[in-house]
Amino acid sequence: MNEIAERRKRLFSGARFSSALFRAGDTPGEASANFEYFSGCSIDGSYVALTRKGGSLFANGMNLAQARKESFYPVKLLSYKTVCKDLRKVCGRGKVAFSGSELSANKYVALRKRAKLDIVDESERALAVRGKKSATEIARLSAAAKATKKILDSLSPWDFKTEKELDSHLRIEALRAGCEVAFEPIVATGKNSSLPHHRSGAAKLAGHVLIDFGVKKESYCADFSRCYFKPSAKKEKEAYGKCETVFEKLLDALPDCSKGKDVAQLSEKLFKENGLPALIHSIGHGIGLEVHEYPHLGLKSEDSLEGAVLALEPAAYYQNRFGVRFEKMVANVKGKWKEI
Amino acid sequence: MNEIAERRKRLFSGARFSSALFRAGDTPGEASANFEYFSGCSIDGSYVALTRKGGSLFANGMNLAQARKESFYPVKLLSYKTVCKDLRKVCGRGKVAFSGSELSANKYVALRKRAKLDIVDESERALAVRGKKSATEIARLSAAAKATKKILDSLSPWDFKTEKELDSHLRIEALRAGCEVAFEPIVATGKNSSLPHHRSGAAKLAGHVLIDFGVKKESYCADFSRCYFKPSAKKEKEAYGKCETVFEKLLDALPDCSKGKDVAQLSEKLFKENGLPALIHSIGHGIGLEVHEYPHLGLKSEDSLEGAVLALEPAAYYQNRFGVRFEKMVANVKGKWKEI
Repeated sequence: MNEIAERRKRLFSGARFSSALFRAGDTPGEASANFEYFSGCSIDGSYVALTRKGGSLFANGMNLAQARKESFYPVKLLSYKTVCKDLRKVCGRGKVAFSGSELSANKYVALRKRAKLDIVDESERALAVRGKKSATEIARLSAAAKATKKILDSLSPWDFKTEKELDSHLRIEALRAGCEVAFEPIVATGKNSSLPHHRSGAAKLAGHVLIDFGVKKESYCADFSRCYFKPSAKKEKEAYGKCETVFEKLLDALPDCSKGKDVAQLSEKLFKENGLPALIHSIGHGIGLEVHEYPHLGLKSEDSLEGAVLALEPAAYYQNRFGVRFEKMVANVKGKWKEI
Repeated sequence: MNEIAERRKRLFSGARFSSALFRAGDTPGEASANFEYFSGCSIDGSYVALTRKGGSLFANGMNLAQARKESFYPVKLLSYKTVCKDLRKVCGRGKVAFSGSELSANKYVALRKRAKLDIVDESERALAVRGKKSATEIARLSAAAKATKKILDSLSPWDFKTEKELDSHLRIEALRAGCEVAFEPIVATGKNSSLPHHRSGAAKLAGHVLIDFGVKKESYCADFSRCYFKPSAKKEKEAYGKCETVFEKLLDALPDCSKGKDVAQLSEKLFKENGLPALIHSIGHGIGLEVHEYPHLGLKSEDSLEGAVLALEPAAYYQNRFGVRFEKMVANVKGKWKEI
């Protein structure tokens, strides 16, 4: 079975809705992972409407030709005048799944009140479907990971004066590799590294530098964090070593984990054992078309790890002093976990 | 008066709501123009809550320190447990303005049902407030325009083999200039240029190439389109010349326009006079923190041109043959229009 059709089949398996509707972003390149995943293409301003039997893609006049070139499903014109009637015709009177995190509030109101669709937020189910990666997807994630590691492996961070210069270098290297950045890179030196989401600025590189960076290749994301040290940064290096230890132990123990919470609980235990302060973010996250996706790795998460690809990121933050983070990607292929 | 406070004052001037609530994007760098405009900073996952008298910024624990460094308004912790109560306390029982195009459907439902806020979509009003640019904003837009033109002026498009190579070059040049791209660049050669939103691909550059490109600098966007021709591309060059003529005549006549529809109607007339096919997109758009913003230049648009900065883009598309587009930015400073 075609992979796009198989994704639709999994979305509807055991579902209580009779159709699903996902909308692309408003501008080219804007995130709309569910649209891309279930339609197999990326056409801004479009809807993909799915039923158990098939689907249709609605594209506006400006993108119609592009959509016809790329879409797996038959393409229809998205006309402002007829869109409500057209969507009702395809989706029917039953419940229509949509993604509450991707659709804007005004489109939500329009679908309910103008198109009179009985829409239900099934973003969690869509995320769970996307969480189980296919061989094609793992290959793409591996390619994104490989391109990212190649850039980081050949990096001489001390050749750059400031966070911003190093940040620009990473972005340029991503483009040179034929990719784009999967997210805004983080380059943080000194105290700045104690803020997990620090934005690269004018600070001069000194002591140690934390880099959180990943490229996006063929729509799939990579996410790695590494720290680089000058000989003076002993405490920083020591803390980083502990994060690496936690990562290695987590990887070894992953075969015993089946849910997100198992990883989070194990991580909490390992942090204590290694004398690291409690984490102020989760120990990691699923990764795919988006940087952060299913499975969630919180202490109460029931999300399944079957077929998952994760970014695991043990980190230690010492307020107003420094922070370190060690992050790599791992994939669950047929029950075995390996770094990618 | 501080510019951020003045923006709040204009938002509430004559308004029927008693407070306003804007949310930042979920990840660093994600678009959330209203949040950025009205808070004066960019902190992912945060809310800014405003009343006539002042405002508060709610940031999650991970971003609290960053928010305290950057926010004009006092910063409070956004805690999952107390967020509903906290927002109700600041926003009160009256109507709460929000932006239906920026807020996600699930946050919309949460604010209505869990926080029990009487939220009303005032995205049009927020856009209108943002449409009138301050001197600081015009200076930033001019800087973004200048950086973009510098890159395009020094470009030798025929040094590159494919659309994709030229596209990568533009992205790298944006980074070298200390900027980012304001939107996915469009590089389209031959037939591809007849698709307004073509995505740069493997096509070999030949005949003529259409480039639609702009950088974002200090959060403000630029947007320019230029075509480059080989001697053989006579028809393409001729059509481009007509687009340039339309642009010049539009610029001359802008002082007689006060609303978006005036520009659209004038443009329609000029297209006919110059023997160009009717446009399949609007003649241009306001530009600022976002590439496409107020004023809208549609045939029925009542949007005011006062203090506006526009990207005007006369274009001609000949299906399955070729397309050309001529786009520059213009600003209305104290009633006078000039290119920036």
